[in-house]
Amino acid sequence: MEGVDYLADERKKAGFDVDEMKIVWAGSRHDFELTDRISKLVANDPGFSKEGRTMLPRKELFKNTLRKAAYAWKRIIELRLSQEEATMLRRYIDEPAFTDLHWGMFIPALKGQGTDKQQEKWLPLAYKMQIIGCYAQTELGHGSNVQGLETTATFDPQTDEFVIHSPTLTSSKWWPGGLGKVSTHAVVYARLITDGKDYGVNGFIVQLRSLEDHKPLPGVTVGDIGMKFGNGAYNSMDNGVLSFDHVRIPRDQMLMRVSQVTKEGKYVQSDIPRQLLYGTMVYVRQSIVSDASLAMSRAVCIATRYSAVRRQFGSQNGGQETQVIDYKTQQNRLFPLLASAYAFRFVGEWLKWLYTDVTQRLAANDFSTLPEAHACTAGLKSLTTSATADGIEECRKLCGGHGYLCSSGLPELFAVYVPACTYEGDNVVLQLQVARFLMKTISQLGTGKKPVGTISYMGRIEHLMQCRSDVKQAEDWLKPSAVLEAFEARSARMSVACAKNLSKFENQEEGFAELAADLVEAAVAHCQLIVVSKYIEKLQQNIPGKGVKQQLEVLCGIYSLFLLHKHQGDFLGTGYITSKQGSLANDQLRALYSQLRPNAISLVDAFNYTDHYLDSILGRYDGNVYPKLYEAAWKDPLNKSDIADGFHEYIRPLLKQQLRTAKL
Amino acid sequence: MEGVDYLADERKKAGFDVDEMKIVWAGSRHDFELTDRISKLVANDPGFSKEGRTMLPRKELFKNTLRKAAYAWKRIIELRLSQEEATMLRRYIDEPAFTDLHWGMFIPALKGQGTDKQQEKWLPLAYKMQIIGCYAQTELGHGSNVQGLETTATFDPQTDEFVIHSPTLTSSKWWPGGLGKVSTHAVVYARLITDGKDYGVNGFIVQLRSLEDHKPLPGVTVGDIGMKFGNGAYNSMDNGVLSFDHVRIPRDQMLMRVSQVTKEGKYVQSDIPRQLLYGTMVYVRQSIVSDASLAMSRAVCIATRYSAVRRQFGSQNGGQETQVIDYKTQQNRLFPLLASAYAFRFVGEWLKWLYTDVTQRLAANDFSTLPEAHACTAGLKSLTTSATADGIEECRKLCGGHGYLCSSGLPELFAVYVPACTYEGDNVVLQLQVARFLMKTISQLGTGKKPVGTISYMGRIEHLMQCRSDVKQAEDWLKPSAVLEAFEARSARMSVACAKNLSKFENQEEGFAELAADLVEAAVAHCQLIVVSKYIEKLQQNIPGKGVKQQLEVLCGIYSLFLLHKHQGDFLGTGYITSKQGSLANDQLRALYSQLRPNAISLVDAFNYTDHYLDSILGRYDGNVYPKLYEAAWKDPLNKSDIADGFHEYIRPLLKQQLRTAKL
Ligand SMILES: Cc1cc2nc3c(=O)[nH]c(=O)nc-3n(C[C@H](O)[C@H](O)[C@H](O)COP(=O)(O)OP(=O)(O)OC[C@H]3O[C@@H](n4cnc5c(N)ncnc54)[C@H](O)[C@@H]3O)c2cc1C
Ligand SMILES: Cc1cc2nc3c(=O)[nH]c(=O)nc-3n(C[C@H](O)[C@H](O)[C@H](O)COP(=O)(O)OP(=O)(O)OC[C@H]3O[C@@H](n4cnc5c(N)ncnc54)[C@H](O)[C@@H]3O)c2cc1C
Repeated sequence: MEGVDYLADERKKAGFDVDEMKIVWAGSRHDFELTDRISKLVANDPGFSKEGRTMLPRKELFKNTLRKAAYAWKRIIELRLSQEEATMLRRYIDEPAFTDLHWGMFIPALKGQGTDKQQEKWLPLAYKMQIIGCYAQTELGHGSNVQGLETTATFDPQTDEFVIHSPTLTSSKWWPGGLGKVSTHAVVYARLITDGKDYGVNGFIVQLRSLEDHKPLPGVTVGDIGMKFGNGAYNSMDNGVLSFDHVRIPRDQMLMRVSQVTKEGKYVQSDIPRQLLYGTMVYVRQSIVSDASLAMSRAVCIATRYSAVRRQFGSQNGGQETQVIDYKTQQNRLFPLLASAYAFRFVGEWLKWLYTDVTQRLAANDFSTLPEAHACTAGLKSLTTSATADGIEECRKLCGGHGYLCSSGLPELFAVYVPACTYEGDNVVLQLQVARFLMKTISQLGTGKKPVGTISYMGRIEHLMQCRSDVKQAEDWLKPSAVLEAFEARSARMSVACAKNLSKFENQEEGFAELAADLVEAAVAHCQLIVVSKYIEKLQQNIPGKGVKQQLEVLCGIYSLFLLHKHQGDFLGTGYITSKQGSLANDQLRALYSQLRPNAISLVDAFNYTDHYLDSILGRYDGNVYPKLYEAAWKDPLNKSDIADGFHEYIRPLLKQQLRTAKL
Repeated sequence: MEGVDYLADERKKAGFDVDEMKIVWAGSRHDFELTDRISKLVANDPGFSKEGRTMLPRKELFKNTLRKAAYAWKRIIELRLSQEEATMLRRYIDEPAFTDLHWGMFIPALKGQGTDKQQEKWLPLAYKMQIIGCYAQTELGHGSNVQGLETTATFDPQTDEFVIHSPTLTSSKWWPGGLGKVSTHAVVYARLITDGKDYGVNGFIVQLRSLEDHKPLPGVTVGDIGMKFGNGAYNSMDNGVLSFDHVRIPRDQMLMRVSQVTKEGKYVQSDIPRQLLYGTMVYVRQSIVSDASLAMSRAVCIATRYSAVRRQFGSQNGGQETQVIDYKTQQNRLFPLLASAYAFRFVGEWLKWLYTDVTQRLAANDFSTLPEAHACTAGLKSLTTSATADGIEECRKLCGGHGYLCSSGLPELFAVYVPACTYEGDNVVLQLQVARFLMKTISQLGTGKKPVGTISYMGRIEHLMQCRSDVKQAEDWLKPSAVLEAFEARSARMSVACAKNLSKFENQEEGFAELAADLVEAAVAHCQLIVVSKYIEKLQQNIPGKGVKQQLEVLCGIYSLFLLHKHQGDFLGTGYITSKQGSLANDQLRALYSQLRPNAISLVDAFNYTDHYLDSILGRYDGNVYPKLYEAAWKDPLNKSDIADGFHEYIRPLLKQQLRTAKL
């Protein structure tokens, strides 16, 4: 059986150079080589095996994750991996762990909010993992509303210390990853109180556990918050609960980059602008968008391969049945997700650029683009994570019954992914922020303030309010300019309609609250436009490789025309297209599906995922699905014996009608 | 703390008689009393506790389910419960178990497909649970395409036996619930071969395990197919794999109601029409629609109560923050789901009537309404299960971070519910069947064949193709006739558009395949119309109780206007409404949300669910969420000790930089 490739015929059909596409997907030759090398390194190391992950009880699952994390660190040191390589290694281990928070939130918080002196002291310890840290912001009672946090840090000038305290049950920290069982330290967000005055929320470095025996320090109550969605999934993470009973820390453990408390207890704002903190937010959110394309592409890879393997109905005279990927309904569900994976990839790439741009401007004290960058990253985080969560579940359904098995990989992928819609900003709360930005932009349109960046199309508002689509035949929808204008006009008109309705309210805040649902729709329209426009910009670049650009164009068309069809009400309602033009778009979409079909398998091959990373029998590279599903079944603990545990106590008495005497 | 009710103020706001609403929800006073009594019986019996369900490893989880099933049977006997009561008891135990298949599929299959003689022999054994049976249709290679099943049942006239055999790996039975570890018998679907001829798929009663020691019989290979989505969820069920190596059964174990094989091996069609089998299908699907309203209402009950408890933002001068249920975005996501729960409840009730009607007609050899009943149940199964699966996940997201905890009850509810979109007919495959029926109906419109039942509106096709909405102000959308005509016109026009496009194809089958995605949209539009129209019919009945009918009208308005807004593209594109009328609908929808708001908690109270059944800390009747969340966290196995298992091996060496010497 080894060496078989049930998808070989599919691979032969590809009308483009897959190796070149791999590089486009990875972002550069360097990134391709990096991800290729590290993903294979992980895949080939039995220390990182995923075997049995969904069958482990919580404690064993968690212990195994601790083992992997330690082993990974050992390998990182042994192989002298660079920081970039180490990050990749952790990604391909593909299991949520305390290290995600240590590297992804604790260290960045120290860097972003600590003074140089604080960084000098703490970063080396953290880099060597001599301390392990987490990010403790959310409380039982407050997540979205960070300003409402209740934990207090009260300065005591007598001892030059802060007293960290949890005054209520709801002030318990709740959710921070890595907090429950592992972290020795945390950046704790608490209300800074000095001289009897509350200065709002600030970060503090607090030690939680002994570096010797790992026992919680006096006054610290800490534990895990319990099981979460899915089997393995996020349960390898010790999301934690934490409360303080007057825990004292030295004054210099307040993160003091943007504000300080003096020895005397005086609160001082530093001259470093608060906006600097936004830089980190832009960074974190762009990486969430990248992760969205990663998760979406994984699910799509599984569903696409399996849809080519699975045959159902349509056999003529005893011949083979139809591959389900050939059904137009299957294509209409699957191909837009494939296109989304690419679209999110490119917008994620662009966000990386945006982050560099923002950082450079901040360094030069130029804050002019911050509001736009902030709105844009908030909106894209929301848009891409929501679409990806839904997309993974759709991929699972596309696999029929077999998608419901953990061995398909999809249930776990969903369960582990969905919190991305909630953390780092609830997706609805984020779109409301985008909406505020849109309304503000519109209100300033007359004032001479020119909208920049992703919102610059609003500068052409007069044209966008009046223009009509000039599409006359289906192929006209292939023109990027036709698509772009449609999305711009839709977005602009929806925003303007909201602004008009808002102006009917005496109280703007009340109006905003009342029209919130419409405002969110306008924000989504704006974000979809960003994705479409960044994809179109990408296609204006020189992209080498036979047929590569052509495939990307097909995908771009699918992404945008699918959205156009799905939100047809917006495009029709705002009067930019006629219903005839809407049908033409739909016809063109169908034609694009047919163009995509022969390339589908190769387009998911271009993600270059190992079978280890996919962890899915349905998504196996070789398509050898059925024998492997059958084999895997027998590994379930229930199959350890022919007769079920419990037969004698609970089944036999049923069959023998001896229940009355049974002890139950 | 006992006796506290954090939702008491909410409950005081209700503008209707909750007790009367409970009866409307239950269907009748009898049904209310039945469900009330049995659900409390289960809730108060520690033998049915759900404690720790999501933390159990597979084997223990499964054993515990066996225990509950046996205990339930014991109680059923002790309390002399009627069949109706026993069914309710199993529902409120709320854990998938082999008994679901025994009572829900095995026995109905015997009744539907067995001869009187076969029923006399097998039913008493099954009713007493002296044998335990399952329904073994799906195979590794074939689910949707039942006609493609590969298992063979070859008649051997020499011994008067059938030889049941699995000729290929893909012919292994795969998925049947209760098959893996419990069932002693199965109705096995296999290709009937006699006299060298293949007569297609038929059911056979096959014994799988010894009634003494439960060992699989010779030639039978049987086991569990492994872990599925979620922690507890469906993993309490032994979905099984089964293959046969020439297993012999007596001829009279072929289910012979509609066709027989004689002693001589002659295949004979009985004079009982095959259509009779559809009766069972209508029955099973109507119960799936009822279950959809059950699952949706559970999720909505949790999210609604928690949304009233949860406060975030909006505190003025240190006062209380805003309840998140007061945010219009939250209402716009939640209230349509609440309305859907009621809508699905009523359409489910109507389907029960339809089933009786179909049964009576079948008994009188009247098959005229069967195609319509078949299409309608297929479509409603698909519509309601898809909406419910999505709705549960939306409810989870509505609970923010805390919804991701198993203790919220929502992850498990989702994981256990989603396969309803796949079993008993993949939801897309079902809508394609509806679409076929629609196209057939349209093609016969000229022929004088009058469309009946849910499709009768097509009889007014000329009017429906031309009419325009006469809505002039928002309130006009409150008129049932305005809503009904809108949904009828939209559905009719979408179907007609498909039929027109189909007619452009030379080959109708090719056309159907090419336009499948549009056809599914037309089918969905038709099914939404059914739900809306049955709800409106319900409102024409006399409904007693102060304010009850009024609330139901508000919900009906929300259900239909939300759909109208969501699918605005259809209504605008087919030219039935103007975009102005679309906005008016949206304005009215917002107004309805405000009317619903004060009644929201009482409307979910009307479901009359016990805290045991909901199994959700966020959805507790008393709203006492935070202390209980905190309490529950400490029960996680990880919290058994302060120091994590694995600290010495895997964390200490990190902190102490002693990895090189660590054994990993
Ligand atoms: C897996 C996971 C890991 C996490 N890791 C960490 C971590 O490491 N560190 C940490 O500090 N935190 C962490 N969190 C917490 C996370 O940041 C919060 O859950 C998140 O910020 C959402 O806040 P919330 O839970 O309070 O939701 P809520 O704000 O309570 O949301 C509930 C509902 O209210 C709605 N809502 C709230 N405010 C408004 C408004 N103004 N207008 C309209 N609607 C509104 C929301 O849309 C939502 O539907 C984690 C959470 C999860 C699930
Ligand atoms: C939890 C659970 C319990 C079950 N219990 C039982 C049981 O007790 N007994 C039993 O016999 N079976 C059982 N099943 C099996 C179930 O009935 C099948 O999974 C179901 O019929 C779907 O078939 P499939 O898995 O072959 O999906 P497939 O048909 O393989 O579907 C895969 C994809 O192909 C698409 N597709 C298939 N055909 C077409 C077409 N003609 N046109 C367009 N698209 C198409 C589908 O839409 C889907 O996207 C169970 C399944 C589950 C998940």
